[in-house]
Amino acid sequence: MKDGAVHDAATPILDRVSSPADVRALRDWELSRLADELRQETIRVVSQTGGHLGSSLGVIELTVAIHAVFDTPRDKLIWDVGHQCYPHKILTGRRDRMTTLRQEDGLSGFTRRAESAYDPFGAAHSSTAMSAGLGFAVARDLGGDPGDVVCVVGDGAMSAGMAYEAMNNAGALKKRMIVILNDNDMSIAPPVGAFSHHLSELCVQKPAQDIRALMNDVAAHLPSPLRHGAERARDLMKEFVTGTTLFDKLGFQYVGPINGHDVRHLVAILRAVRRNGTGPILIHAVTKKGAGYVPAETASDKYHGVSKFDVATGVQSKGTAKAPSFTKVFGQALVEEGERDRRVVAITAAMPAGTGVDLFAKRFPRRSFDVGIAEQHAVTFAAGLAAGGMKPFCAIYSTFLQRAYDQVVHDVALQGLPVRFAIDRAGLVGADGPTHAGAYDVGYLANLPGFVVMAAADEAELVHMVATAAAYDDGPIAFRYPRGEGFGVDLPDQGKPIEIGKGRVIKSGRTVALVSFGARLQECLAAADILDAKGLSTTVIDARFAKPLDLDLIVQAADSHDVLVTIEEGATGGFGALVLHALSDCGALESGVAVRAMTLPDRFIQQASPAAMYDVAGLNCEHIVQKTLDALDQKQNTTTRRQPALRTVR
Amino acid sequence: MKDGAVHDAATPILDRVSSPADVRALRDWELSRLADELRQETIRVVSQTGGHLGSSLGVIELTVAIHAVFDTPRDKLIWDVGHQCYPHKILTGRRDRMTTLRQEDGLSGFTRRAESAYDPFGAAHSSTAMSAGLGFAVARDLGGDPGDVVCVVGDGAMSAGMAYEAMNNAGALKKRMIVILNDNDMSIAPPVGAFSHHLSELCVQKPAQDIRALMNDVAAHLPSPLRHGAERARDLMKEFVTGTTLFDKLGFQYVGPINGHDVRHLVAILRAVRRNGTGPILIHAVTKKGAGYVPAETASDKYHGVSKFDVATGVQSKGTAKAPSFTKVFGQALVEEGERDRRVVAITAAMPAGTGVDLFAKRFPRRSFDVGIAEQHAVTFAAGLAAGGMKPFCAIYSTFLQRAYDQVVHDVALQGLPVRFAIDRAGLVGADGPTHAGAYDVGYLANLPGFVVMAAADEAELVHMVATAAAYDDGPIAFRYPRGEGFGVDLPDQGKPIEIGKGRVIKSGRTVALVSFGARLQECLAAADILDAKGLSTTVIDARFAKPLDLDLIVQAADSHDVLVTIEEGATGGFGALVLHALSDCGALESGVAVRAMTLPDRFIQQASPAAMYDVAGLNCEHIVQKTLDALDQKQNTTTRRQPALRTVR
Repeated sequence: MKDGAVHDAATPILDRVSSPADVRALRDWELSRLADELRQETIRVVSQTGGHLGSSLGVIELTVAIHAVFDTPRDKLIWDVGHQCYPHKILTGRRDRMTTLRQEDGLSGFTRRAESAYDPFGAAHSSTAMSAGLGFAVARDLGGDPGDVVCVVGDGAMSAGMAYEAMNNAGALKKRMIVILNDNDMSIAPPVGAFSHHLSELCVQKPAQDIRALMNDVAAHLPSPLRHGAERARDLMKEFVTGTTLFDKLGFQYVGPINGHDVRHLVAILRAVRRNGTGPILIHAVTKKGAGYVPAETASDKYHGVSKFDVATGVQSKGTAKAPSFTKVFGQALVEEGERDRRVVAITAAMPAGTGVDLFAKRFPRRSFDVGIAEQHAVTFAAGLAAGGMKPFCAIYSTFLQRAYDQVVHDVALQGLPVRFAIDRAGLVGADGPTHAGAYDVGYLANLPGFVVMAAADEAELVHMVATAAAYDDGPIAFRYPRGEGFGVDLPDQGKPIEIGKGRVIKSGRTVALVSFGARLQECLAAADILDAKGLSTTVIDARFAKPLDLDLIVQAADSHDVLVTIEEGATGGFGALVLHALSDCGALESGVAVRAMTLPDRFIQQASPAAMYDVAGLNCEHIVQKTLDALDQKQNTTTRRQPALRTVR
Repeated sequence: MKDGAVHDAATPILDRVSSPADVRALRDWELSRLADELRQETIRVVSQTGGHLGSSLGVIELTVAIHAVFDTPRDKLIWDVGHQCYPHKILTGRRDRMTTLRQEDGLSGFTRRAESAYDPFGAAHSSTAMSAGLGFAVARDLGGDPGDVVCVVGDGAMSAGMAYEAMNNAGALKKRMIVILNDNDMSIAPPVGAFSHHLSELCVQKPAQDIRALMNDVAAHLPSPLRHGAERARDLMKEFVTGTTLFDKLGFQYVGPINGHDVRHLVAILRAVRRNGTGPILIHAVTKKGAGYVPAETASDKYHGVSKFDVATGVQSKGTAKAPSFTKVFGQALVEEGERDRRVVAITAAMPAGTGVDLFAKRFPRRSFDVGIAEQHAVTFAAGLAAGGMKPFCAIYSTFLQRAYDQVVHDVALQGLPVRFAIDRAGLVGADGPTHAGAYDVGYLANLPGFVVMAAADEAELVHMVATAAAYDDGPIAFRYPRGEGFGVDLPDQGKPIEIGKGRVIKSGRTVALVSFGARLQECLAAADILDAKGLSTTVIDARFAKPLDLDLIVQAADSHDVLVTIEEGATGGFGALVLHALSDCGALESGVAVRAMTLPDRFIQQASPAAMYDVAGLNCEHIVQKTLDALDQKQNTTTRRQPALRTVR
């Protein structure tokens, strides 16, 4: 990156950095300047691409300090969640591609192993870094990949049980491993829970930090016997000044709290820890989300996720929404149900705005619960609420509900408790890519006994499904709907419960039946027009339910058409599989109908616009048409072949 | 329960107890005697039935004290895991049915909502009680079911992140809720992790307990203003004597440690807490697993799970095993692989003996990791180990791997990391019932891109699959196998890697193809004999792989037989679904073959012997025969019907 001219003229030091080795070659006084330039560059890039800005701005100095002190990529730097990795990407040889961030064929918005050796462990879901880091540390000590392990974990991620499990295990194994707690008192939403309060308390005793930091630093430069004495003194002082921390109790050495925006201070501490650290160490760095960019600092969400914006004013370009989002429609419908029934309560796991539960919380603060990033607890808490007589709506993205699968099976399904699952982000989600795809929920829910599983074809259907879930008290019920804006259909004044297990025939034909489960219905209708025009009279069915299936309707469709194609925004093992299983079971497949199941393909689909991702997935209108034509073709060419017997091979 | 004669003559007080109300009518001095009788009765019952004895003996006094003080079932008593509930069942109207424990149509070995109003929340998996309890507490405060909430949680359950998530949330919500930490320093295996060390430390400061307990009790009887002062004094003393605890930091009031076998002491503390408790309270009770029964106390596993035994000697009746268990075969095969390749490491989540990892740990202690009840961490830790160059075998029961589903998807599958999953307890498991069934793993794994999913037909196949997994380094790979002993087939001297995606033809016929995935193969062979005898020449295939499917073989089988039946020990959405999907996709279903997928039925199957459970499930030999005959029948009666067009209904 010799040619500074391709970037702003004002980043002379950054322009000399094409890899972290260049950072390590800088003199200490240059590092603070590098941080300033890196901040400027990060703002510039994200103003053009949109993305996760606030969290990246919060770790600018940390990023510089870590790469200045540690020997990346030999040393493993693991960013928890990974959405704060933009400055890390800029420093690790990806600066020229930053404007492709979160776009088709571009850089991922998260860390990704396939993208760079500097991303030793990819992320996107929260709270995984310490478990992975401990794996690297143990592998190293057993003769695997060498190098130190540095995990950077946000305070919001600390509410997840997985983080606790990892610390508990690390504290027992006593492997050398460095965890930097990036405490910005804010994940996507302000963090919740008692742990968050504990962190605040630690920060109150601020005077302690400098004494201790100093002693760390001093101890680091002493010869070993003296150092030992200094360390003991420091430990005593720590006890005296701040008392013990939760981290101490879990077997971590606790250092902090320290100022996460002071590069020199950070570098000094990291060097001291690198030289002297044994066992697991936790460095508590206090940072500010959105730091150094006034519009971000002053925004309530700290520019967590932004669209493109004007750097001078911070004003974001607003796409002109043609219709309200599914999320908002859900939130409003839930408020309506809450007005009608005071037993309706809502649970979110750190995603009040993302799920629309914020609308409910505003209207019914006492009946709304943000449990933090803690999906396992969220689901069993909801099960307890249901057992206690309430009507809990547990609103969790499809991809994050994976975190609570056992709780769904063991606490909800097995006991038949009427927990309502509002599953946002069903199907492909665009810029967040494969880590956030809602691909598996239909399979992992609809194969559980007693579960009702619905998918909304459009936002009006979603309103009715919220009403259906509110009215249904006989067991668990889930409804899924996609990310983003609706189709602009008219919304009903009031949701009306749908009869459980009943699909609807949208359009009746004679040759081809398209059976849609979810929001591909519009693509099916467009495909039907094309097929009709080709003389293939086409039926379009909105199945509404993957479970219980509308078996009468589906068998009738199979018996009365040449081809039946199922379409869903999910992986194999879901709706199509259940249809095939049900049809095979009642002998309906032998009647001659050609059945095809269209699902997400058997590979992870990288980020792009949702439409482009569905193109790659082969689930758009033209693919439906082609699948149907191919099926007709295959069917016509099928002869009842008789193959030779199989040879026994053991 | 008036007629004491049906029980031992020596339980005069217990004989007067037909419900907890009778416990509450007893005088305090009678409670200790009741406890003695309850212990005697519990031993007597389990000596006849087998079951979880050690944990039940550890909570005898707790059980009596809780029912003596709290107004169950109005007050919700939630036993975490639930396997320690035998004395609770005896006191809550189920004494007469105790000899049916864990048997067909008998009492569950765990708490179960459907069984009794005294079981407000069922369990069997660990660490769910506090989440559920918080749900009840919140529901109560919102006008739902009234009553107090008492959760009893073992120290082993505290390593699970879910427990931490619940405490974090409870500490923030500040609802009144009582948690009794049953600290017996032993779950199934000795507990691991830094937290366990923390508990030990707390117990060292024993003198504190009596002072504090006394002050609790005293404070309870003082009028409010004085009480406040007494409480403050107590708090100060607590700080002074024991320092703060992890529980304090999470927002719980900590009381303890107290002697969990002293009924009077327990009753006093519980009464005090009941009178005065506000917010979440943690009572740390120290108990002894197996307490009061010498053979249990002195056994290394404290009689965690026992078969029938002689009360006088403690000698358990040994079933005569015809063959080594799958678990043991796995453990031995893993040791073999460990000898050959030093990169092989093993991970268990608190189940060293249950998974056979104990054998590996004995031979390779440094390469074996018991992370505690912490499946989420276990899987991502394994992913980190794989990324660091090791060959991790993550040995987790099918039902417990549900706890780590997101980690399997997000940390393993998405990154294509070669983590080996050894999935014990696939299919129905007998006495442990539906909570422990391994029903869903094929679906939840084989629908993930890039996963290899195998099932072992017998113990020799298992040895080869361990070798296959050890050799395979291109991505995640899983192999499943059932609970219990093998079929007694000869074991190979050394496992040989199986070609990925290749099934085997065991027996070749012309009319019927039975395609088995897993250990129903023997049932298929028996069914084939019956079908052959009926003149239906039968092929039997061991598919070995659900993913990648041996598509050539399966299409060939479909094309060359009249009927193809798949059989698996799992739910819908698994192997059969993938076969149907693949066959439909290539047009092989239209060739006239009748395909049927035999899976677990769409309901939870209660405990019985595995054979009896498979009978209920309809997956034994005779069901395979019947399914085949029905399919032939249906096929012969199929005419290519032409139904009227569907009516449009929106």
